[in-house]
Amino acid sequence: MTRQERSERTRRGLIQAAAEAFDANGFVRTRLSEISAGAGVSPGALHFHFENKAAVADAVERVARARLRCAARAALNQERGALQSLMDLSHAVAVLLTDDVVVRAGVRLNDDSDRPSGHDLHKDWQDLVEALLLRAAEEGTLDTEVPTRCLTLVLVAACTGLEALGRSNPVWLSRSSVTTLWTLLLPRMVGPSALHAVDPAGRDGVIRSAVPFPA
Amino acid sequence: MTRQERSERTRRGLIQAAAEAFDANGFVRTRLSEISAGAGVSPGALHFHFENKAAVADAVERVARARLRCAARAALNQERGALQSLMDLSHAVAVLLTDDVVVRAGVRLNDDSDRPSGHDLHKDWQDLVEALLLRAAEEGTLDTEVPTRCLTLVLVAACTGLEALGRSNPVWLSRSSVTTLWTLLLPRMVGPSALHAVDPAGRDGVIRSAVPFPA
Repeated sequence: MTRQERSERTRRGLIQAAAEAFDANGFVRTRLSEISAGAGVSPGALHFHFENKAAVADAVERVARARLRCAARAALNQERGALQSLMDLSHAVAVLLTDDVVVRAGVRLNDDSDRPSGHDLHKDWQDLVEALLLRAAEEGTLDTEVPTRCLTLVLVAACTGLEALGRSNPVWLSRSSVTTLWTLLLPRMVGPSALHAVDPAGRDGVIRSAVPFPA
Repeated sequence: MTRQERSERTRRGLIQAAAEAFDANGFVRTRLSEISAGAGVSPGALHFHFENKAAVADAVERVARARLRCAARAALNQERGALQSLMDLSHAVAVLLTDDVVVRAGVRLNDDSDRPSGHDLHKDWQDLVEALLLRAAEEGTLDTEVPTRCLTLVLVAACTGLEALGRSNPVWLSRSSVTTLWTLLLPRMVGPSALHAVDPAGRDGVIRSAVPFPA
């Protein structure tokens, strides 16, 4: 292993240990000494990679955002229609939030008012939901008198709620909970004939391909 | 004014100042000196009423819970059916979260993992939603093939999401947002004939009577 590979491995270990600490204790209460101890490295090694706690948190959030973007790309690439892509993606995000501590900590850090972040992941999600619903309308799948703006509002609120409630009880982020959400909303989004063409439980293959990071 | 009245007024002022500080900065970052300064009293006066920061936070959460319970009683007393009561109450809670800093701070403190609370307000809300839906089914208003358990899940998730998103942007808690939620869900909850008998925008009088605390 070259020095650069070792350094990269240490950095990844620090990000993982930081995510575990931030996820458990939040930004304010996490200490740098816990992070270096969690990664099994000296405080000096941590400071070689990160200037301070804010820099570590930025790195965790950046990795979380990259993994969420990667999941979005995988789900959207499948060309089975925008509405099915959106459902698959919502399941994939729920799996990431449940199984991947870096994604979970990144989302939590993004929400943490103790730590200003340049990004707003809720706004990213809202924009994506709205774009996919508009595309589904163009494709002719979305067949409803309900305006896209209203569907977006309810979907974003419900998904945000599942994430918030899932922090203390993972059952809110289970496959069954996310499927229940879609099963309830779909008849308000598509006509009766199109209902059979979509799968509110998501497609296994797509969800798996959107979640490439083992816990 | 008697000494007891003065003492009671000081205590109320401390709870209000504490709510403002907790709402702005969270539990960990709020200092007792900010709270006494915000209430215009000495640190000694604060310590006469509250042993420490956790005790002030407990008091804020207790008052918030009492106001939410009071709103629930007002909405449920109106005998216009359980489903309309639930819609009215959701609007009243959104007004309280928007206008009443003690309620907002109490809910935020209840969610704060830095501060263990004996209560779970989300669970209280979930139990209330489920009980009202079951009552609406008994009354014959709820007419749907969707199980009450699934309706409860989606309603609790969506309301929790509106609250979470409303922390950084109050538009999520506006009358219009809450009305959109109900307008979208109602056709999955009641038959077409019953749709005209309920008002997803809530009844003004009930919402006002459930929100007796001016901002």
